[in-house]
Amino acid sequence: MDELDGNPSESQSPAADPEDPQKCPPVVTDIGALNCSSLNVESFIEQSIAIIMEDVVKKATDVTEKVCEWRSPEQLKELLDLELTDGGESESKILQHCRDAIRYSIKTSNHTTYLLNQTVKSCYHDNIVCVVSIRYTYEVAPVFTLIEDAVLRKMMEMIGWEEGGDGIFNAGGSMSNMYAVNLARYHHYPHIKELGLSAAPRLVIFTSRECHYSISKAAALLGVGTKNVYVVPSDNRGKMISSALEEQIKTAKSEGAVPFMVNATAGTTVLGAFDPIEEIADICEKYNLWLHVDACWGGAALMSQKHKHLLKGIHRANSVAWNPHKMLMACLQCSAFLVRDKTHLLQRCHSAQASYLFQQDKFYDVSYDTGDKSVQCSRKPDAFKFWLMWKALGTRELEQRVDRALAMARYLAQEVEKREGFRLLMDPEYANVCFWYIPPSLRNLSDGPEFWKKLHTVAPVIKERMMKKGSMMVGYQPHGDKANFFRMIIISPQVSKQDMDFVLDEIHNLGKDL
Amino acid sequence: MDELDGNPSESQSPAADPEDPQKCPPVVTDIGALNCSSLNVESFIEQSIAIIMEDVVKKATDVTEKVCEWRSPEQLKELLDLELTDGGESESKILQHCRDAIRYSIKTSNHTTYLLNQTVKSCYHDNIVCVVSIRYTYEVAPVFTLIEDAVLRKMMEMIGWEEGGDGIFNAGGSMSNMYAVNLARYHHYPHIKELGLSAAPRLVIFTSRECHYSISKAAALLGVGTKNVYVVPSDNRGKMISSALEEQIKTAKSEGAVPFMVNATAGTTVLGAFDPIEEIADICEKYNLWLHVDACWGGAALMSQKHKHLLKGIHRANSVAWNPHKMLMACLQCSAFLVRDKTHLLQRCHSAQASYLFQQDKFYDVSYDTGDKSVQCSRKPDAFKFWLMWKALGTRELEQRVDRALAMARYLAQEVEKREGFRLLMDPEYANVCFWYIPPSLRNLSDGPEFWKKLHTVAPVIKERMMKKGSMMVGYQPHGDKANFFRMIIISPQVSKQDMDFVLDEIHNLGKDL
Repeated sequence: MDELDGNPSESQSPAADPEDPQKCPPVVTDIGALNCSSLNVESFIEQSIAIIMEDVVKKATDVTEKVCEWRSPEQLKELLDLELTDGGESESKILQHCRDAIRYSIKTSNHTTYLLNQTVKSCYHDNIVCVVSIRYTYEVAPVFTLIEDAVLRKMMEMIGWEEGGDGIFNAGGSMSNMYAVNLARYHHYPHIKELGLSAAPRLVIFTSRECHYSISKAAALLGVGTKNVYVVPSDNRGKMISSALEEQIKTAKSEGAVPFMVNATAGTTVLGAFDPIEEIADICEKYNLWLHVDACWGGAALMSQKHKHLLKGIHRANSVAWNPHKMLMACLQCSAFLVRDKTHLLQRCHSAQASYLFQQDKFYDVSYDTGDKSVQCSRKPDAFKFWLMWKALGTRELEQRVDRALAMARYLAQEVEKREGFRLLMDPEYANVCFWYIPPSLRNLSDGPEFWKKLHTVAPVIKERMMKKGSMMVGYQPHGDKANFFRMIIISPQVSKQDMDFVLDEIHNLGKDL
Repeated sequence: MDELDGNPSESQSPAADPEDPQKCPPVVTDIGALNCSSLNVESFIEQSIAIIMEDVVKKATDVTEKVCEWRSPEQLKELLDLELTDGGESESKILQHCRDAIRYSIKTSNHTTYLLNQTVKSCYHDNIVCVVSIRYTYEVAPVFTLIEDAVLRKMMEMIGWEEGGDGIFNAGGSMSNMYAVNLARYHHYPHIKELGLSAAPRLVIFTSRECHYSISKAAALLGVGTKNVYVVPSDNRGKMISSALEEQIKTAKSEGAVPFMVNATAGTTVLGAFDPIEEIADICEKYNLWLHVDACWGGAALMSQKHKHLLKGIHRANSVAWNPHKMLMACLQCSAFLVRDKTHLLQRCHSAQASYLFQQDKFYDVSYDTGDKSVQCSRKPDAFKFWLMWKALGTRELEQRVDRALAMARYLAQEVEKREGFRLLMDPEYANVCFWYIPPSLRNLSDGPEFWKKLHTVAPVIKERMMKKGSMMVGYQPHGDKANFFRMIIISPQVSKQDMDFVLDEIHNLGKDL
């Protein structure tokens, strides 16, 4: 917990450089000073908007402009510099990627392009200038198809799937987890796709008490049934108890039910806990169960040499959900579902083979028409923003973001422990810092039911006051048998120690009279 | 078909006004001259970007800025002018709506806001400046929650649900159709949510041969099974034959299966056909089946006094899917799922009641926390762009867009019929114009298998040539026993008769040597 110490000047540095308010001060940790992006946000926005105005908006009604500059997948791969590397690229290079993306994309706003389908257009009323492209076939989204592929492959590399796999970006982590349930089911019982579950045995999913609620929602939606999600106890740090998992599997089998999938959570929503993936993978292998890792929140730790041990064993998973729109701060929505399978399971599981989209007599390699892997039809090109961000920052700076956020979380936890009237639920191992604020009036009460009953009412009042004052937003919730507590999650590379101090000061100021 | 005639000057007018290239000429029809938006796109983009830079980006690191200006739902409804009316509003009013939306939204980019959760942030790397707000609770998305409600209610009014209903925006029409299947199932058999389908009888969905493939994908994903989607024959115009529907229902019952839902399509993907909703509704009432109308594509006709007859009876549907991102040209994704039910069926069907999101001890009316209606967790505020667009244009101009697009489709069909070497599949009743191009070398062949076999190869070659030339993009596909044909779909209010003529000329030029 001492990695943030020893640099008094840093802790007194201003929150932002007055010369460049976008730039935040470095945080000194045991692994060195961690900077955040040096990109000038305003300048970048101005220049990229200028490109969009010039290359998209002004050309929108110019019928002499080509609808597309057709390149085959092989040619386009050479033209676009797709590779994601350790170092970030210069602003001018990033702007050139924007120009290239526009140049080789379908000009969705040109007159004649509208004639393709009802699906492509530029828009201005939503306060956003965007090139919208639809990702079901290569021909309508050549650039974004290749970029999605490049990003997914890089993410698989981080997971440790040396032989690659498959994947897709979709509309959020809940959907990724649903995909996992469907794939696991299809892998074990492919006939259910056609025949439905009414002819099938009772299938059972295992997940921890601390998992995200989308596992339960998926079980409901997919016809598995929420009661067939067997809830495995977690330890007092929120990690699944693997011996209890094995017990549950045996119980299900003894009931005549059919276990088919285990969901391990890497980064639980409330406590930020990581299930023991290696132990769970051993059990999955023993019982031939699909192992899905919901790393929507915790996947970011894979970027960090210091913290990736939290997900040790993730390379053994059959599928992984990972949301770059969380700690890696890609803009919502940006959610990847990754599968280790290399036998087109994703395609086979979800395909409907609509003949009006996936014609087989096209003039290019139709294996690039990836749309039938999705249960959606049109999709937004979510991979592009993550790719561009990765290009700009490089793997190294993404790593620093993670390291910095986690160092800041530990600093906050340390402060909570130090301060009178604050109590930590537990030492954080990730970015979730959970704590109670105990107003002076309760500090002399003994730690019994009366104390907890009164404490339970404190956080909601402080929350109401901070919202009405507008000073900050920190969430609270009850959890299991725990009374309402604050849960602060640190992801921003811009927050400083002063911000952390401010949060605790402000909670005290808002609640000291309670 | 003569509504576009009688105005020779219009048909010779330039495609765009040189003074204002964004402005397109009016199309004169039998119901008057149809204009498209007079909004100056470039100016609007520049001004709205300036607001975003000022109110979002530059304030992002100013810790003296409030995180939110809290208003209760009742107060905020009064502050925001939510109502959607017949007339469009001025540019200055639209820009004020943008300012208000920012003002009363959570300042997702402020330092301290990051502390709420891992979910809110502003972003710049995705080439888009956007205020991202998450829509699961009122407190994190007060403006967008109320706007979504206002838009859904207006859409229900257009459908004819005088007593209102419920609804949600989600990630595309495929998801809306999945919601329909899940709701229909939950309505009839609520215990399946908990127990799963393995304990249930074989459930059957009915839909036409021409329906969107997402019905089949939904059946697969939801564990109903694709073979339990009974395909009802369509007539030669692509409309479901309602007597055949009744036969299929009887067949399913005689097999011991349990019919629970009929999907009627309003605007099929390929032919643009509308199933006879009134007749289907009668049958659904007789057999107590959930009636879902997939109006993703055809729903836009509800805006038009002239064309809304195509969806006659839609007010009798239990649920409707309608994508404003199609003909109404809201930016992708913008997809609404609407339910006539007023007993919180949507919430009960999808809820998981996560205690860390949906705390019941909040200081405002938690019925505004609509997130648990969704199977997603975070959602993009898709309703906002449609609302802002509707504000700018007014209902009347949205209607004109639809009327104009459909008039243009009829003009194109007329031209196809007139020209040598073109053959129409059928008179369009919506915006889908399907036709073959017959190169001179095939024009003297008799109409037999040899002719169709050769014709089948023509469209793919022309498509390849147009892509490589970059002159336009018109899709083709086979359909049932029909050889490859072109399918042009007209939605843009900017296309002109000259554009239609260009498409046919270009197809001829690209294919005349074949």
